[in-house]
Amino acid sequence: MSTEKHILHYETSAPKDKPAADDPLAFGTIFTDHMFVMDYTDGTGWHDPRIEPYKPFLLDPAAIVLHYGQTVFEGLKAYLNEDKEVVLFRPEENMKRLNRSNDRLCMPMFDEKFVLSALKELISLDKDWIPDREGTSLYVRPFIFATQPYLGVAPSKTYRLMIILSPVGPYYKEGVNPVKIAVESQYVRAAVGGTGSAKTAGNYAGAMKAQEVAEAEGYSQVLWLDAKEHRYIEEVGAMNVFFKINGEIITPSLNGSILEGITRKSVIELLIDWDIPITERKVSIDEIMEANRAGTLEEAFGTGTAAVISPIGELFYDGEKCEINHNEIGELSLKLYETITGIQTGKVEDPYNWVVPVD
Amino acid sequence: MSTEKHILHYETSAPKDKPAADDPLAFGTIFTDHMFVMDYTDGTGWHDPRIEPYKPFLLDPAAIVLHYGQTVFEGLKAYLNEDKEVVLFRPEENMKRLNRSNDRLCMPMFDEKFVLSALKELISLDKDWIPDREGTSLYVRPFIFATQPYLGVAPSKTYRLMIILSPVGPYYKEGVNPVKIAVESQYVRAAVGGTGSAKTAGNYAGAMKAQEVAEAEGYSQVLWLDAKEHRYIEEVGAMNVFFKINGEIITPSLNGSILEGITRKSVIELLIDWDIPITERKVSIDEIMEANRAGTLEEAFGTGTAAVISPIGELFYDGEKCEINHNEIGELSLKLYETITGIQTGKVEDPYNWVVPVD
Repeated sequence: MSTEKHILHYETSAPKDKPAADDPLAFGTIFTDHMFVMDYTDGTGWHDPRIEPYKPFLLDPAAIVLHYGQTVFEGLKAYLNEDKEVVLFRPEENMKRLNRSNDRLCMPMFDEKFVLSALKELISLDKDWIPDREGTSLYVRPFIFATQPYLGVAPSKTYRLMIILSPVGPYYKEGVNPVKIAVESQYVRAAVGGTGSAKTAGNYAGAMKAQEVAEAEGYSQVLWLDAKEHRYIEEVGAMNVFFKINGEIITPSLNGSILEGITRKSVIELLIDWDIPITERKVSIDEIMEANRAGTLEEAFGTGTAAVISPIGELFYDGEKCEINHNEIGELSLKLYETITGIQTGKVEDPYNWVVPVD
Repeated sequence: MSTEKHILHYETSAPKDKPAADDPLAFGTIFTDHMFVMDYTDGTGWHDPRIEPYKPFLLDPAAIVLHYGQTVFEGLKAYLNEDKEVVLFRPEENMKRLNRSNDRLCMPMFDEKFVLSALKELISLDKDWIPDREGTSLYVRPFIFATQPYLGVAPSKTYRLMIILSPVGPYYKEGVNPVKIAVESQYVRAAVGGTGSAKTAGNYAGAMKAQEVAEAEGYSQVLWLDAKEHRYIEEVGAMNVFFKINGEIITPSLNGSILEGITRKSVIELLIDWDIPITERKVSIDEIMEANRAGTLEEAFGTGTAAVISPIGELFYDGEKCEINHNEIGELSLKLYETITGIQTGKVEDPYNWVVPVD
């Protein structure tokens, strides 16, 4: 792996204009001056790590990624904390998961420590792009895709790993607002034995249709049920999901078709630390609707890197509307949101060593 | 759609060397001099159809296809028939299916007649690339992918449609040989409600792991079971599958997770025409293993564009090996193979008007 250790720099001679201080920074639309690139060739391994100006690259029309979807990605954020230091939240978890996704997609493993150091080096170089208004951050997107020009259905012999950076505005423009969710009764996100627990393109491509239908009917996202019985809850939109019933927190157990969310993991660890009962188990939509009828469904929320905590104000299932906590954010949801975002930005102490400095 | 009608030609000034007459033409590795390209922009529709030299193109690192897998494709073949005319096999079916795949992936429809005419124009231009040895053909790959640089999970606002051509050798080097198939007990190709009936990248990416495991154990492909009960047969490798039991032909009915194969459709139509009983229904792996034990499982075969008919000589399931027709190609499998390839190459009369001339 010695070829990996030296990162060449080809820095831009024409830096782009940075967004204005009051730019709303629509998610995932603005990219910084540089990107990290590293290539893989069967027999050689990962080679030629480099930082280059952000720009389009040449891809063969027969590249496997375009036809057979061998590609995995991660999403994390860099923050400017209270002391104007650049920090990351549990980035080693993203590196681990990216390699787990690689394994599922028959793609080559990489050296997690090296790529994390490259990621930090890239962020340091473009740190002037990190916005510092409340709730803003630098979204970091590592991804790997198959580049071999070959139309046979087989794992590629060449790959490219890239990291790109995008300054993003606050997820919530006016406080943390609950969303309306439609329980998906026709489409399926992933099946046990499929790719649901990997962060790979096909899971997202297949989910767009259900999202389109839900939006047309006035809902923000869909609640996904399992592929087998269409009864057990899996995820909400592209987030993990939690319910508070009678003081107990419940989240679907990791069954192979659910993404192992890093915010999910952090929420569970916080709840354990706070001595709040948390159970990972199968949870059916019927149980949730019944708890709502009985008045014991106290809170529901999604967890993910983008929103951190996204309260669910209403569920629509099988003709029945279920309003949760009067369509307001719950006490626990708010406490989790404030704790995690507080740790990320340095406003709240970090006894877990979740925050990692970039420099 | 008037913008679509005129195809600009930018022909190569440096034609590549064509493969030697005895080149084995490994599948999907050699590409012709030209490709067809057309772009889509929300609000404008499909525009700028053109034929260009085959070459890598520029793609933004944030292009949606690389992250969220919005991409669909087709595969068909052009043949030089007995009279040295260039012909296609039911290409309008590929155009229809490509648009159905588009719909499932929230991608824009295209004018099927226009793209078929563009496909013919491209093949005509590169017709000297079509090999003429027994069993060879020109593989034609139309595909469409999302190009918008955007990291939000939403349908792209821009797309590219391309058609590339690849001369390919015979699928069978030494006659039609049966293959050994492992029944897949862990992984799942697709679930009802997922993308299994669309020809989209994610289905293929997710299938590679099972294929890798099967190959390591000495099998050519896997037989996929359903996601719900892991009991009903869906596909074999990337092909549809047929069984002959007691003189009756059975194939899994299209349930939403099975690809609507064009060779599958042609086989069914031939069997009906030949007055051979053909039933589309759910078929369990237990039923097949039981029929084998009872001696009534006469033939089994996969169907697809690449192999046309691929006889199954052995199934391995749950510790039990099931040899089919003494690991030899069955009489009906051979008749189907010879009829379809005969129609494709003009050796057999085509009463169904399946063959379409390119010029």
